Amino acid sequence: MKVLVINSGSSSIKYQLIDMADESVMVSGLVERIGEEMGSLTSKTFPGTDKEVKTVLEQPIPTHGVGLEMSIDLICKGDNAVCTMNEIDVVGHRVVAGGEKFNVPVVITEDMWPDLTETERLAPLHNPANLGGARDATKLFPGVPQVLVFDTAFHQTMPPHAYMYALPYEYYEQDHVRRYGAHGTSHKYVAKECARLTGKPAEEMNLITIHMGNGASMSAVKNGLCVDTSMGLTPLEGLVMGTRSGDIDPAIHNYLAVNRGMDIAAIDNVLNKESGLKGLCGMNDMRDIHAAIEEGNERARLALEVQTYRTRKYIGSYMAVLGRVDAIVFTAGIGENDDIVRLKSLEGLEPFGMKIDPEINAVRSKQARKISAADSTVDIWVIPTNEELAIAREAKALVS
Amino acid sequence: MKVLVINSGSSSIKYQLIDMADESVMVSGLVERIGEEMGSLTSKTFPGTDKEVKTVLEQPIPTHGVGLEMSIDLICKGDNAVCTMNEIDVVGHRVVAGGEKFNVPVVITEDMWPDLTETERLAPLHNPANLGGARDATKLFPGVPQVLVFDTAFHQTMPPHAYMYALPYEYYEQDHVRRYGAHGTSHKYVAKECARLTGKPAEEMNLITIHMGNGASMSAVKNGLCVDTSMGLTPLEGLVMGTRSGDIDPAIHNYLAVNRGMDIAAIDNVLNKESGLKGLCGMNDMRDIHAAIEEGNERARLALEVQTYRTRKYIGSYMAVLGRVDAIVFTAGIGENDDIVRLKSLEGLEPFGMKIDPEINAVRSKQARKISAADSTVDIWVIPTNEELAIAREAKALVS
Repeated sequence: MKVLVINSGSSSIKYQLIDMADESVMVSGLVERIGEEMGSLTSKTFPGTDKEVKTVLEQPIPTHGVGLEMSIDLICKGDNAVCTMNEIDVVGHRVVAGGEKFNVPVVITEDMWPDLTETERLAPLHNPANLGGARDATKLFPGVPQVLVFDTAFHQTMPPHAYMYALPYEYYEQDHVRRYGAHGTSHKYVAKECARLTGKPAEEMNLITIHMGNGASMSAVKNGLCVDTSMGLTPLEGLVMGTRSGDIDPAIHNYLAVNRGMDIAAIDNVLNKESGLKGLCGMNDMRDIHAAIEEGNERARLALEVQTYRTRKYIGSYMAVLGRVDAIVFTAGIGENDDIVRLKSLEGLEPFGMKIDPEINAVRSKQARKISAADSTVDIWVIPTNEELAIAREAKALVS
Repeated sequence: MKVLVINSGSSSIKYQLIDMADESVMVSGLVERIGEEMGSLTSKTFPGTDKEVKTVLEQPIPTHGVGLEMSIDLICKGDNAVCTMNEIDVVGHRVVAGGEKFNVPVVITEDMWPDLTETERLAPLHNPANLGGARDATKLFPGVPQVLVFDTAFHQTMPPHAYMYALPYEYYEQDHVRRYGAHGTSHKYVAKECARLTGKPAEEMNLITIHMGNGASMSAVKNGLCVDTSMGLTPLEGLVMGTRSGDIDPAIHNYLAVNRGMDIAAIDNVLNKESGLKGLCGMNDMRDIHAAIEEGNERARLALEVQTYRTRKYIGSYMAVLGRVDAIVFTAGIGENDDIVRLKSLEGLEPFGMKIDPEINAVRSKQARKISAADSTVDIWVIPTNEELAIAREAKALVS
């Protein structure tokens, strides 16, 4: 079975064609700057292997539909074609927000569209593009099942006391204001991987999963099910991120309005794009921050301290939620590659049986690996995430 | 030594005259509805004793100055006078926000006023009234030291990684946006009491103090010093309160603006006055909520679950901050009187050595008492707070 995985963004499309026989990537591509004067398409067949062939096209790409068609042409018709269109058995789409209705992956049927459209206001920057990609693919692949995999689905097992805000109840009833979380496909993937690598059933494991990239979120996973997560109605809440504030006093909005004359739109923009690590020290790439700390930059050090301290506090709160923690899993860009952030996030948690082996932790690798010390009662893992493969697996499972 | 303690609010004055020889309350009073058509003054001499005499005056009270003068007249001149004005050695004032400059109690000197006025924007509803009370008392008691005790002072030992928000750094530099906390006088008082009752030096104890009344906040106290607290720039952040939301996704403001057409002032008002327990179930008194739960009210049950679950998460995060917790202290209205909230807040924390004795917990009392089970490794206390006495002690210590 071959699955085409599509992640359709506001002006881009990322895609992978995956051969489920061995879960290998046959083609990986990226369409960028859709609707701009000049667009581009970068495609790699058999990426990372001896057979890798890279193709770059530069031309105007007026719509997502055109971008997707160009991508399919490269996959199925060009000199480097790897299969025919008929061989693509299912298309899987990443969708950021599923709301409460879409709590599992679904095969699109026509009658779903009103409910799907209703989810757009929960993620106005992402869902319209995600769902538009699914519409385009439906036209290009008539009769091929289109599977939607929602970033929020894994978190739909949270109990009400974890997902309800202490706000007027009608905000929930009328406007669906509640915690949904994000990165769910990644949290679920690494939670399953952790169980597999540990050799235990997922349903018997309590985990804290930490997805830390440019965006960052944590989940408390009890007996294989998500019971709490740090992102909320939107991906702004929770941990300190590259440019996002994470948690703040919700009275700060009014304070900024009074003291700096800002309106809600301006404040929301700052909280999403000018805050986080960038707000604290002017840099949002953790590698730049480490380099600046080496040079004695105190603001960079503060940014690292705040970010890891907040992560540590979330670990503590999820300890309280879970009672027993079997393992902590780090994943995504920073989680997989930044040994200093991992070490500092767990600083002082030794009394709770969480102890990193600093030497193992310092070894860079693209493989899943356990980094806890021999006498750590909680296993600490680094497990590379693979959201495309996770979507492909969900899509395959649903149509099989 | 006799200390007059004044808590001057926007339209009220609360006061106590305390005899520091035995820390007994000689007079306790409340001026209400200042500036309204009809005001009132209620005063009790030797409250709670056989000698208690209650006086109630109903008349227009145009200004705080007039209200304070009436109060002093009752204390020093009327039929129930307990002392002369000359016998009042020091006046202690509660001030909500001290900013970064006022990190300890101070005796007012004239040159402080510019810095004191600067603190008003940090608590625009409280500080102007608090400081106005100090100005009035300065005129009424020329030559008597006026001590300001700041609610935020105890929290000024927090390290930068605990008090900095991940916001543009200039918000901190120019507008003083950071975590200040609140209820500090209460947190400090119960932390000291806990050490005294335990028979250990405060500097050797790690505590989690939970001040839970209509407002609610928690502090992590390490070796006697506050290292983190749940309230932030304002008293809106943190735990779920009677009418305050506590923590929410900071993107909810923009979502409400887009979906409900609300502006910042309206949202801020809802978050402070229509949220929390009241938002979830329509009631903001925990006693009403327990009664409603008894009658099968599901929204009331949800409110209790959310409130106690969030408290539990904060306990967990402060466990991570402290590493070792010697004791948890509950105080203030709900903390002192609500055994169900205490029990549910610690639910599931037995693996961390926190175990309440349900029978001792269920006994109502006005006394400080340990409610942990014999096999609890963490002591769990209920310690009645006494902010007036705490202010009087600070005032006495400062002028002695």
